[in-house]
Amino acid sequence: MRTFRLVISCPDRVGIVAKVSNFLAAHNGWITEASHHSDNQVGWFFMRHEIRADSLPFGIEVLREKFAPIAEEFSMDWRITDTEQKKRVVLMASRESHCLADLLHRWHSDELDCEISCVISNHDDLRSMVEWHGIPYYHVPVNPQDKQPAFDEVSRLVKHHDAEVVVLARYMQILPPDMCREYAHKVINIHHSFLPSFVGAKPYHQASMRGVKLIGATCHYVTEELDAGPIIEQDVVRVSHSDSIEDMVRFGRDVEKMVLARGLRYHLEDRVLVHGNKTVVF
Amino acid sequence: MRTFRLVISCPDRVGIVAKVSNFLAAHNGWITEASHHSDNQVGWFFMRHEIRADSLPFGIEVLREKFAPIAEEFSMDWRITDTEQKKRVVLMASRESHCLADLLHRWHSDELDCEISCVISNHDDLRSMVEWHGIPYYHVPVNPQDKQPAFDEVSRLVKHHDAEVVVLARYMQILPPDMCREYAHKVINIHHSFLPSFVGAKPYHQASMRGVKLIGATCHYVTEELDAGPIIEQDVVRVSHSDSIEDMVRFGRDVEKMVLARGLRYHLEDRVLVHGNKTVVF
Amino acid sequence: MRTFRLVISCPDRVGIVAKVSNFLAAHNGWITEASHHSDNQVGWFFMRHEIRADSLPFGIEVLREKFAPIAEEFSMDWRITDTEQKKRVVLMASRESHCLADLLHRWHSDELDCEISCVISNHDDLRSMVEWHGIPYYHVPVNPQDKQPAFDEVSRLVKHHDAEVVVLARYMQILPPDMCREYAHKVINIHHSFLPSFVGAKPYHQASMRGVKLIGATCHYVTEELDAGPIIEQDVVRVSHSDSIEDMVRFGRDVEKMVLARGLRYHLEDRVLVHGNKTVVF
Amino acid sequence: MRTFRLVISCPDRVGIVAKVSNFLAAHNGWITEASHHSDNQVGWFFMRHEIRADSLPFGIEVLREKFAPIAEEFSMDWRITDTEQKKRVVLMASRESHCLADLLHRWHSDELDCEISCVISNHDDLRSMVEWHGIPYYHVPVNPQDKQPAFDEVSRLVKHHDAEVVVLARYMQILPPDMCREYAHKVINIHHSFLPSFVGAKPYHQASMRGVKLIGATCHYVTEELDAGPIIEQDVVRVSHSDSIEDMVRFGRDVEKMVLARGLRYHLEDRVLVHGNKTVVF
Repeated sequence: MRTFRLVISCPDRVGIVAKVSNFLAAHNGWITEASHHSDNQVGWFFMRHEIRADSLPFGIEVLREKFAPIAEEFSMDWRITDTEQKKRVVLMASRESHCLADLLHRWHSDELDCEISCVISNHDDLRSMVEWHGIPYYHVPVNPQDKQPAFDEVSRLVKHHDAEVVVLARYMQILPPDMCREYAHKVINIHHSFLPSFVGAKPYHQASMRGVKLIGATCHYVTEELDAGPIIEQDVVRVSHSDSIEDMVRFGRDVEKMVLARGLRYHLEDRVLVHGNKTVVF
Repeated sequence: MRTFRLVISCPDRVGIVAKVSNFLAAHNGWITEASHHSDNQVGWFFMRHEIRADSLPFGIEVLREKFAPIAEEFSMDWRITDTEQKKRVVLMASRESHCLADLLHRWHSDELDCEISCVISNHDDLRSMVEWHGIPYYHVPVNPQDKQPAFDEVSRLVKHHDAEVVVLARYMQILPPDMCREYAHKVINIHHSFLPSFVGAKPYHQASMRGVKLIGATCHYVTEELDAGPIIEQDVVRVSHSDSIEDMVRFGRDVEKMVLARGLRYHLEDRVLVHGNKTVVF
Repeated sequence: MRTFRLVISCPDRVGIVAKVSNFLAAHNGWITEASHHSDNQVGWFFMRHEIRADSLPFGIEVLREKFAPIAEEFSMDWRITDTEQKKRVVLMASRESHCLADLLHRWHSDELDCEISCVISNHDDLRSMVEWHGIPYYHVPVNPQDKQPAFDEVSRLVKHHDAEVVVLARYMQILPPDMCREYAHKVINIHHSFLPSFVGAKPYHQASMRGVKLIGATCHYVTEELDAGPIIEQDVVRVSHSDSIEDMVRFGRDVEKMVLARGLRYHLEDRVLVHGNKTVVF
Repeated sequence: MRTFRLVISCPDRVGIVAKVSNFLAAHNGWITEASHHSDNQVGWFFMRHEIRADSLPFGIEVLREKFAPIAEEFSMDWRITDTEQKKRVVLMASRESHCLADLLHRWHSDELDCEISCVISNHDDLRSMVEWHGIPYYHVPVNPQDKQPAFDEVSRLVKHHDAEVVVLARYMQILPPDMCREYAHKVINIHHSFLPSFVGAKPYHQASMRGVKLIGATCHYVTEELDAGPIIEQDVVRVSHSDSIEDMVRFGRDVEKMVLARGLRYHLEDRVLVHGNKTVVF
């Protein structure tokens, strides 16, 4: 069922819900899902509606046009998206295949509603798996002495494919700051620890050293500060003294792929609203 | 902060949210929490709002009066409650103290927002614990050959205390059908299994026999059919071959008290809407 | 690191551990993992050791020979396996790909230590995915009016590939009783509910009807009685009123594949000991 | 059933299990539970046995005497404890009652097998609750300008009651370094975050600021470095954008009390072996 998604955040005040509900009701909009949240600490309001496209007497362009004055009145940060316009996603990976294979299978079996434009990797290992899915694979090696040419090429490919979302599916390189800024809230990473614990390299080794009883994974938007961006989703799994680091890595893989798949899905469904360094996930 | 809670369920159609939101906005109502749900399978709509009492220019009686025509127009099943009117709760227990002690402590430390009118038990074991909290304790023994007199007395006490909610905190007797009917959706039970598995007596023994790897607890409204009423909340805990039935009972106690406390809290906060044999928990 | 696995179950009595430990120490066996369990209800003892192959002065055949007298003395049900002898696994599937794809990827990335001899399916949909992995694919359609010829062919293929384990990775057909008997404790199924709740067809529909707040999956050995065999592993995921049956099916897929992968791994590592209708999982 | 618990850690080598098992079998010891662990990274071995006291032909003193040569041979750090000798526990609390009330109820209902010698608090709020249980309550106020006199008095009370374990049940003061050293691996704290995230004060505020999607609690041994001692147990609970800091505090209370109760139980049952800054929990 085709729906339009109206996603709003704005300073909180009385009457926002009424105004928006009225607007939708006036045009006979059939709301299939509605979510609100008021953050009292920062005085901000968040709202997301799914509206059946066929219940409205006009298309998305007219809907945007008619809604614009309300958005202006309430100083809204807003967007209206169309479930028939699949988002273009670029996946990036290195050598580890579990997250990439998981996302590709979800896409292949119609669970992830998006277009996968291409896969970019700094290694060539996963080419055959990707190409079996009919998706272009770009091998862009990164020279440790001079990484900029590689990132220029990555940037070019992302632009060329007009990507709306970039997913770092265990891409083991740190994106340069200007790319983080340019694609703010559009680059999704999976970090293999329960952040803010164990930022940076080898988090399972860090976890083993500290003797924690649960390990986790965190899906977050990439910002200039390493592993510090707004968190979209997290989960954990129990470990014990009898689990080696290799066991932790193995358990961790399952958490990583589940958390990344959920986080990406929320993003694709326009469920994630960022405010400051925190997310609202409807 | 004092709020009024407007809780609605009605046949689904376009315009309900707009009508209700408009109504609240027209009176300057400050919505602190709003939840909607459309059940497409049965075509029913559910909604719950919390509104700051001090944002409205009138009290709850006028609010109800003014809302009544809308409720009628949409054939709503509805109520408006006031957080300053604490619900009167009667707790019932037998010999096992864990659920009762847990609820009493939550009430004593102001976590559970209700009035505990009294505790009724078919044993006298827990009297001192209850009376330390300043709560009346009634010992109503049940004669296995003739249970009716006991239930008549229970019924009299519940009426005498004008109870709005009855909580079976491991009360090991089955309430008579007429009481189930009279207090429909007002009697909350904790069953020590993950229903619908292991209905009836000795569920941990049944679970051990079947060799399950997780055991659970279920908080539900009591209906005439044993352990078959609408489920409010459930949870589970992992067990293994090394856990004896006694271990399961011990693990289970923790799940039982958590699940019952959550279920009761949802009920007290008017978050549970029953439709058919299912609940919506906002 | 190559290890031998000594797996034992026998009537419980004093001295078993001493006898076995002595035996291993006398031959300088380096134990890398040891697990014991006494089931006091049935008076049965279970034990599993992993021993470094290179710490012993002889091979597995001599080890078996030397251990045989101890096994006889204690009336043991026992086996010694070699991690270098990968178990031969036949996977069976229907149209749903998530469990099959998950197992194939784990095998492909060396996480599942086994040989996948072939995939048998009553549909032809998943052929290309399987063949990409270099694994033979057999399409054996099942005629609803006369299923026996299909099962005869399945049986022939399983024998032809000398399978030690058969995994029903969402194979939506019920195996005939004689095959269940012939491959007792060797056929592993994933059932898409938290057994014993929702035996049989369409468990997610049953779960939705009952209004449960958690749904689950169960990995178990297949026996003649439907969905009633010894449980190897289970897990659950939280659902709410806002989740449709389609959402449940989607959440359920993730639980199914995790639970099946864990259950199969336990089996392949000789961690599962069956006694009566229950399992010990070391 | 009375058991003796033999708990061992020592440098790993071949033959330890055989030696110990032989020793127990030679005296007809009936092992009800046995656990081993080899930490390959540090080359250390850990073992715990429960032996039925009535299966041995002598008492605990003779058992210790006879075992001593083996312990010496293998350079073991070891102890043998008797389930009939309940450990003496001193509980410490401040104003928050949830952990204290939970532990007292578990003790009162015979779930926690120990002697609670007394409760020490820097406030007088919880006196009545404690005294209802028949346990002495000491109010030792802490002067923020000069804390030493208070800690001297705490130390005197702990000695006076000959405590074997001190539990900080949300005692909101930092113990002085000399006390941490004197009672190494004997002081158990519950920290209200998933360590190592959010060390120090106001962890729920820190968690809310960082926007995490799970919050947790950690039970650990107290060392001189704040919140950095060996971790015994941890757990988490899911939160969302709609949960205020107050909600987090409330959810957190339930995790804290469960995690502390489990951690203390493991300690009382001699299941926790510390090596370096990590624990083995059998």
